[in-house]
Amino acid sequence: MRPAVSIVGGSGYLGGELARLLLFHPGVDLKQVASRRLTGRPLHSAHPNLRGLTDLRFCEPDQLDPCDLLFLALPHGLAAGRIETYAALAQRLVDCSADFRLRDPESYRRWYGQAHPAPDWLPRFVYGLPERHRQELRGARFVSGVGCNATAVNLALAPLADAGWLERAVADLKAGSSQAGAVARPGSHHPERSGAVRVYSPTTHRHLAEVEAELGLLPVHMTVTAIEMVRGVHLTAHCFPSPQAAVEDLRQVWELYRQQYAREPFIRLLGGRGLYRYPEPKILAGSNYCDIAFALDAGGRRVVVMAALDNLMKGGAGSAVQAMNLMLGLEETAGLRFPGLHPL
Amino acid sequence: MRPAVSIVGGSGYLGGELARLLLFHPGVDLKQVASRRLTGRPLHSAHPNLRGLTDLRFCEPDQLDPCDLLFLALPHGLAAGRIETYAALAQRLVDCSADFRLRDPESYRRWYGQAHPAPDWLPRFVYGLPERHRQELRGARFVSGVGCNATAVNLALAPLADAGWLERAVADLKAGSSQAGAVARPGSHHPERSGAVRVYSPTTHRHLAEVEAELGLLPVHMTVTAIEMVRGVHLTAHCFPSPQAAVEDLRQVWELYRQQYAREPFIRLLGGRGLYRYPEPKILAGSNYCDIAFALDAGGRRVVVMAALDNLMKGGAGSAVQAMNLMLGLEETAGLRFPGLHPL
Amino acid sequence: MRPAVSIVGGSGYLGGELARLLLFHPGVDLKQVASRRLTGRPLHSAHPNLRGLTDLRFCEPDQLDPCDLLFLALPHGLAAGRIETYAALAQRLVDCSADFRLRDPESYRRWYGQAHPAPDWLPRFVYGLPERHRQELRGARFVSGVGCNATAVNLALAPLADAGWLERAVADLKAGSSQAGAVARPGSHHPERSGAVRVYSPTTHRHLAEVEAELGLLPVHMTVTAIEMVRGVHLTAHCFPSPQAAVEDLRQVWELYRQQYAREPFIRLLGGRGLYRYPEPKILAGSNYCDIAFALDAGGRRVVVMAALDNLMKGGAGSAVQAMNLMLGLEETAGLRFPGLHPL
Amino acid sequence: MRPAVSIVGGSGYLGGELARLLLFHPGVDLKQVASRRLTGRPLHSAHPNLRGLTDLRFCEPDQLDPCDLLFLALPHGLAAGRIETYAALAQRLVDCSADFRLRDPESYRRWYGQAHPAPDWLPRFVYGLPERHRQELRGARFVSGVGCNATAVNLALAPLADAGWLERAVADLKAGSSQAGAVARPGSHHPERSGAVRVYSPTTHRHLAEVEAELGLLPVHMTVTAIEMVRGVHLTAHCFPSPQAAVEDLRQVWELYRQQYAREPFIRLLGGRGLYRYPEPKILAGSNYCDIAFALDAGGRRVVVMAALDNLMKGGAGSAVQAMNLMLGLEETAGLRFPGLHPL
Repeated sequence: MRPAVSIVGGSGYLGGELARLLLFHPGVDLKQVASRRLTGRPLHSAHPNLRGLTDLRFCEPDQLDPCDLLFLALPHGLAAGRIETYAALAQRLVDCSADFRLRDPESYRRWYGQAHPAPDWLPRFVYGLPERHRQELRGARFVSGVGCNATAVNLALAPLADAGWLERAVADLKAGSSQAGAVARPGSHHPERSGAVRVYSPTTHRHLAEVEAELGLLPVHMTVTAIEMVRGVHLTAHCFPSPQAAVEDLRQVWELYRQQYAREPFIRLLGGRGLYRYPEPKILAGSNYCDIAFALDAGGRRVVVMAALDNLMKGGAGSAVQAMNLMLGLEETAGLRFPGLHPL
Repeated sequence: MRPAVSIVGGSGYLGGELARLLLFHPGVDLKQVASRRLTGRPLHSAHPNLRGLTDLRFCEPDQLDPCDLLFLALPHGLAAGRIETYAALAQRLVDCSADFRLRDPESYRRWYGQAHPAPDWLPRFVYGLPERHRQELRGARFVSGVGCNATAVNLALAPLADAGWLERAVADLKAGSSQAGAVARPGSHHPERSGAVRVYSPTTHRHLAEVEAELGLLPVHMTVTAIEMVRGVHLTAHCFPSPQAAVEDLRQVWELYRQQYAREPFIRLLGGRGLYRYPEPKILAGSNYCDIAFALDAGGRRVVVMAALDNLMKGGAGSAVQAMNLMLGLEETAGLRFPGLHPL
Repeated sequence: MRPAVSIVGGSGYLGGELARLLLFHPGVDLKQVASRRLTGRPLHSAHPNLRGLTDLRFCEPDQLDPCDLLFLALPHGLAAGRIETYAALAQRLVDCSADFRLRDPESYRRWYGQAHPAPDWLPRFVYGLPERHRQELRGARFVSGVGCNATAVNLALAPLADAGWLERAVADLKAGSSQAGAVARPGSHHPERSGAVRVYSPTTHRHLAEVEAELGLLPVHMTVTAIEMVRGVHLTAHCFPSPQAAVEDLRQVWELYRQQYAREPFIRLLGGRGLYRYPEPKILAGSNYCDIAFALDAGGRRVVVMAALDNLMKGGAGSAVQAMNLMLGLEETAGLRFPGLHPL
Repeated sequence: MRPAVSIVGGSGYLGGELARLLLFHPGVDLKQVASRRLTGRPLHSAHPNLRGLTDLRFCEPDQLDPCDLLFLALPHGLAAGRIETYAALAQRLVDCSADFRLRDPESYRRWYGQAHPAPDWLPRFVYGLPERHRQELRGARFVSGVGCNATAVNLALAPLADAGWLERAVADLKAGSSQAGAVARPGSHHPERSGAVRVYSPTTHRHLAEVEAELGLLPVHMTVTAIEMVRGVHLTAHCFPSPQAAVEDLRQVWELYRQQYAREPFIRLLGGRGLYRYPEPKILAGSNYCDIAFALDAGGRRVVVMAALDNLMKGGAGSAVQAMNLMLGLEETAGLRFPGLHPL
């Protein structure tokens, strides 16, 4: 019998992507999708692309039946407060919010400005980035989803950081409007947001906490700029290599990345020529890929690492389903093979 | 001494355009801009393009001093309820809302679903479309602004309607997001509104009341579709000529329009070749032009009239300032000569 | 053994979509993709979304091996000139160009301004719109692809036309930039095309020939306007019902469409409330759906039929693969179940 | 008598902006606009926003009459080859291309890969950035226009560089599609360019030569990324202050910039709150402003300087006209007061 999975917090963009992926997943059955606000309404009332594909209707969170794996796609802060309740419903949990992304309560307090409501639970969670925690994820019970900006930075910088080649980096991120969620705000009003090039986080972004947790306490300076885009994260990481790295040739960088990522199913190292020789988020919409490419300043003083991903896929629901596949012992790429569209 | 003009309801998009036009107007002085919500804050807090151009701050509507001409840029319904108060402040009024666009209280009731709160005032107002009411506007005391979609239809169809050539027309309008105002709503949330092609008014639009009032009770079928655009209205009017019109050649149509519009300062009849041979709203952003062009079906069965304008200019603040110029005896084009940008 | 299929003319947008669909198709094997211009280069040099998914490289058209079904995705005019050659390569052909869409050489001459180069072949082809020709497509040898605008009009108007309810219709279409193909032209230069609302075919569009061929000689007036969109076609059809139709209530229209389309796997009739109650092309990108909805003018004088589809899918490669499934006796929806993305 | 000015190379985007500014300029007369390709055609054939505003037609470059000031808006490389000819036509020249931006022939050779064709002329030119060279520009005969990216970097970093506070900077620039000019190329094809986040110059950009020339040989690392935008440049400069700067508080930075820019008519230092607290190019379209703002990392390790401008205005034609005003002894802001539009 195929595992039964459910979603709580199913009305948001991440919940919608989870629902889409799970409805078409070859190895699991989507049983319930809970949303207090939309209880009783069909899934397509929030996710119009799902019209005609399922008879499921949103249920009350309290009406959730026990299941094999439960996805939490709630606003930040809600999962931690009710973790006992949700853990009682399912053998396995994937929490897509920021609540359980850090292992260290102190780090949580520092970045989120308050004590964690369930600190005992933090060490039970595995950070759901398969490229970094594949072994722990296999069979894991409690998994945290990833931050989209953090994932771009972590995947782009990990090889350099792991090799001790990274002295300092400036991570300049460009972000789409879906990153801010499904609720209308003055800043998301179309006449204002359309065509914007809006730095909204010039010096501090909470996703840095996840970078620190994964790559260590490196001087990574992060700036996020909202641009005209709905889906997608683009990173240009300006990396200053440590002297001992002795980077003189782009092939050294290639070799480093190839060693680490050659067998990763969802990381593509780009090269060659043509319009798409560097990563572009738009051809990744709906796909689970993270595309990465590099360039080198004359003299090797700066390695420019570029990366792109879909914030709702590799930076959210896609990584969460990839983690689920590992937790349940399924094929890691199951349900995640859509390649993206071109042109778009 | 230059006439003093003020604006009440200055925080919206129309109020912002009025402020921009009046700050640079060679013949009047902008004295006050009232906004209850933003009282005390600088104009650029709502209209960032005005930063550094003026020391004006929003005042309370109750703090408005008497002036020579007062613009009302309030949400629909508010002007009618307080018209006595505002009329006491200024010799002349231009109300940009829909409150005084119709002359006939019965028509108002039919289109707006309720009795007009100040029906005695309706006949005192002149409809502020200079191309139709220039003589009445000269020296007028009370003028109503125009609806943006109505203006596109009225200007595009008037020559055909006036000549008795129009049997029936389908007015298919494409609209930008600024038409819906400055307040964020679920439908204006960027991830939803971006890239939309959203029919929001398939069969009935209140602006039809203004078309009826100007052109008579013709069978004009109107549909408005929101597309990816912030500013602008584009009209494709599919016109079926009456048999007696005997339209056989596009030159007949040209002649008709040229007679009516040849001396209009803000109507351009397009012709010739090239990418921009038909009207395009994007090159009209910020300008007061309405561009018009035509095409003819084989056999003369359908005259396609295309028109474009900036909903906040010719379809709003621009026509209002043009009307003000006439009311005050100024050069009609004063303050309205910005030609639009290309490329944009 | 699974059928082997190949593509000739694989460098264009339609060729790219065909390649994407066939690479992931559960019932056929993509064997070769020919492109004279890109011979020897990997598929992802033209279709960057396919990077990492296949080792296929473009081959010379002359190097095509015999196969079970060959897709022709050549520019208009090329397929007809070499139809004998291609027919010798494969038991079955699907030609996606306009060359074999009409049955009548006289109609071809009228719409395309020249004699058809292979008139004897015209009657051998079946028009590849499964909703109209499902029985003929089962097992067919020669199938023509469909025009994207024509498909929107045909699917939206067929129930009215078949019922004899349609007296006259104005088909106002909005189109994305991918419709014009993959070759850069002055009109597709981003600073000019971005944000455009550009009527490019006010009175005559060749796709009308396909409407005539499917629905008969109805007075359908068609106008196509390029808007800011890459993928997608949106139709607003303003339909004037014949008197005998006696349309008084939207439910009559619903009933008519439900009868015809209730069991169609790729047609969705929209209703209800919410932002997406009318068709929107953006949530259909990559999907094979055609969404349809209606509205009725007061008095039943005008039925507004709205439709949306992805020009490269239901309006191109998607319908072609759907036709292939029927030709080869496969499940009709095989390889076409991607539901589209939201938000996008 | 008002000075007569002409333009050679008037068919491009910069030529169009020059024509627009000069047609409305209160202190000069636009006499001729030359374009070999469009000779005899009206200005609006290339610049549709100018329709109806002038009877001027493009003339042959050889038909240019002597004038008081000639703008060269030719593709890079053409001005230098014919500088003697053009200098014979006019007392004063403003060359908007890159040909005379550098003073040092050696630097030109290094950045442009070839010897300068008219090295003797280089020292005669003044770099046309009024904020840096106002005194030299007053009455100057030969002035070079500025590079748009270089201008963003120069204006944003000058106060830090001049004060000796800058140890190293990463200049991450986002650029619109008009920067690449008016000629269609595969990379500007709308389906490819629309929605792109395309790093096109990860490590080296020729505009760095202008930064070096203005600010000295600082380690400024520059990356330019094309985003969905037609007009506009946005810069995020991640600046690492030198230890002696002892930056501890954002007010120190404010003070530095205020000293340098307080009286500049076209530089606005942004502060405060609200959506537009940091620079945004879209509200600058058509305006000559460069908006600048700052943020400071905890600990003062990084000063983030943000800047925005319109590449065709402050980064091109606007600065050129500002320079012209200085050269001719006119009011420096004449013809440049358009404030930009909001919303857009």
